[in-house]
Amino acid sequence: MTAEKIALDAMGGDEAPGAIIDGAVAALEGEGSITADRIIIVGDAVAIDAHLSSAGGNPGFHVHHASQVVDMAEDPRRAMRSKPDNSISVAARLVKDGAAVGLVSMGNTGMVVAASTLLLGRLPGIRMPAIAITVGFTGRPMVITDMGANVDASAENLLHNGLMGGIYAQDCLGIDKPKVGLLNVGEEAEKGTKVCKEAHRLLIESDLGFIGNVEGGEIFSSKADVIVTDGFTGNVILKLLEHFSEVVLSKVAESALTAGVKFSEDVFGPVIRDLDYAAYGGALLLGVDGVVVIGHGKSDARAVSNALKQASRTAEAEINSHIIAGLEASGMA
Amino acid sequence: MTAEKIALDAMGGDEAPGAIIDGAVAALEGEGSITADRIIIVGDAVAIDAHLSSAGGNPGFHVHHASQVVDMAEDPRRAMRSKPDNSISVAARLVKDGAAVGLVSMGNTGMVVAASTLLLGRLPGIRMPAIAITVGFTGRPMVITDMGANVDASAENLLHNGLMGGIYAQDCLGIDKPKVGLLNVGEEAEKGTKVCKEAHRLLIESDLGFIGNVEGGEIFSSKADVIVTDGFTGNVILKLLEHFSEVVLSKVAESALTAGVKFSEDVFGPVIRDLDYAAYGGALLLGVDGVVVIGHGKSDARAVSNALKQASRTAEAEINSHIIAGLEASGMA
Repeated sequence: MTAEKIALDAMGGDEAPGAIIDGAVAALEGEGSITADRIIIVGDAVAIDAHLSSAGGNPGFHVHHASQVVDMAEDPRRAMRSKPDNSISVAARLVKDGAAVGLVSMGNTGMVVAASTLLLGRLPGIRMPAIAITVGFTGRPMVITDMGANVDASAENLLHNGLMGGIYAQDCLGIDKPKVGLLNVGEEAEKGTKVCKEAHRLLIESDLGFIGNVEGGEIFSSKADVIVTDGFTGNVILKLLEHFSEVVLSKVAESALTAGVKFSEDVFGPVIRDLDYAAYGGALLLGVDGVVVIGHGKSDARAVSNALKQASRTAEAEINSHIIAGLEASGMA
Repeated sequence: MTAEKIALDAMGGDEAPGAIIDGAVAALEGEGSITADRIIIVGDAVAIDAHLSSAGGNPGFHVHHASQVVDMAEDPRRAMRSKPDNSISVAARLVKDGAAVGLVSMGNTGMVVAASTLLLGRLPGIRMPAIAITVGFTGRPMVITDMGANVDASAENLLHNGLMGGIYAQDCLGIDKPKVGLLNVGEEAEKGTKVCKEAHRLLIESDLGFIGNVEGGEIFSSKADVIVTDGFTGNVILKLLEHFSEVVLSKVAESALTAGVKFSEDVFGPVIRDLDYAAYGGALLLGVDGVVVIGHGKSDARAVSNALKQASRTAEAEINSHIIAGLEASGMA
């Protein structure tokens, strides 16, 4: 099991391929380190080899050439057709063919979702994959799913998100019997959209540890371990969270300057680390037949290293078998 | 016009009726002050008179008795039937009957929306009212609408939100030719839910100053003056914003303490004021035949005073006539 390989898309992200390859090197060290022969670096082989040479040589990574690159803003469906040899699709095909057990990309999120869904396929019983991220505002991890894979989610999709998010929280984050909440505009069962009311009914009837509806502010509480939402709301929240801590912290810094209070890394460092959900690794695409970790385009080597280790841990935890078993046990398959 | 009255629900909010009545007294002073004979305080007349006596007497407010109170968590439709003489419905009837031009309540938001919609009626051409709030993270006001009146919004509802929000921004916030953005998961026209794609098409065809899709983080930029969204997403965001600044600031305070940095009101005061969207007054219910300002349940006297002045300014600006004219001019009526 530990010998299984991870395909790493070298071409996605703002600092690709340099930061991506440096991340692979960083993943060889520290807690949860993986060996070089378990990493397949996918992308422009010449550029990859050149960067490895300049960084002291290839420590044993496999390099798999892909001749095309999908840009961050490119339309996924179009790119799937016009660039069949793009690094994301090539990485997904390595997983499909069994050469790798999972893939990691810091590239175009929509493209990673499309390529993974179309090339790996969905798990039996799952209609739509979902992106799960892990935040930790209270000091303990909380899974929010879906962060943008499926914007027009049905009640059944939300139920499946709850099941998949719960298994992820249990298997990979060590949360025993995770509490699952449905993001909504009020606590009462009759609140929210038609889809939310129906999802509430399905979740109540399930054995998923459903604690009821939770409101927007509960992301900062420990009321739920898993927050279920549609990909539209989740994506809006994700982008809001990314910007808000920056806004608040820059206002505090400015205000401190005006007030003549001396401010240092001692004060901001711990806050930024607390608010930095990237510390928990990349986003996980749940519901496809393989392990898919999607990182932020701004990922540095540390984030890439974390994402690789996360992919390895997730593969070892066999969450996909547990999702299939969970669907069957709940009569959802 | 300036002689028109505002009905003030004395019974809604955590500190009612004391903080509400103190707010009416505060509204007699300062910029945009209104005279006491323009305020009708609605609620338990005995409690209102007792509070006014203890505060030095009635400066000339009208007091209108209402024998019932709707609790903050009560179901609006049920309360409309079981408590016909509740202070919110009584205030709405004063507006309907022409005794007042608008109402202000810090009570149950759903109840204010339901009572206003059913008793005042909608403006001709508007199918669903929307709650607009004003935030000001960049130092200039931005309108976000809808914050929870209509969770299952159609594309046409979103178009109307854009029109109403734009007129509000122009007439009441002094923003010339407001830029209207549609909250979405990406900038491209083909992004988002089915409803968003259709709303994007309707907005592009309109003359509303549409600048395209905006993402969650743009709430903190000056890209748009009006951000259009459905009541579900808006409500989730609103509650998230309410909690997030608290979370970040408490983390900074804690971290400063640990680092031995002395921190004072000098530093946090200006930040909290910047982040405090309540400074711009209450939320405005757009699309009903009257002026309806909804305040936070935690409103203190200052917030109540601001809400009363806001209701008065909004009535003077005649935004409802402008909304009707705008619908007609755009062929939306």
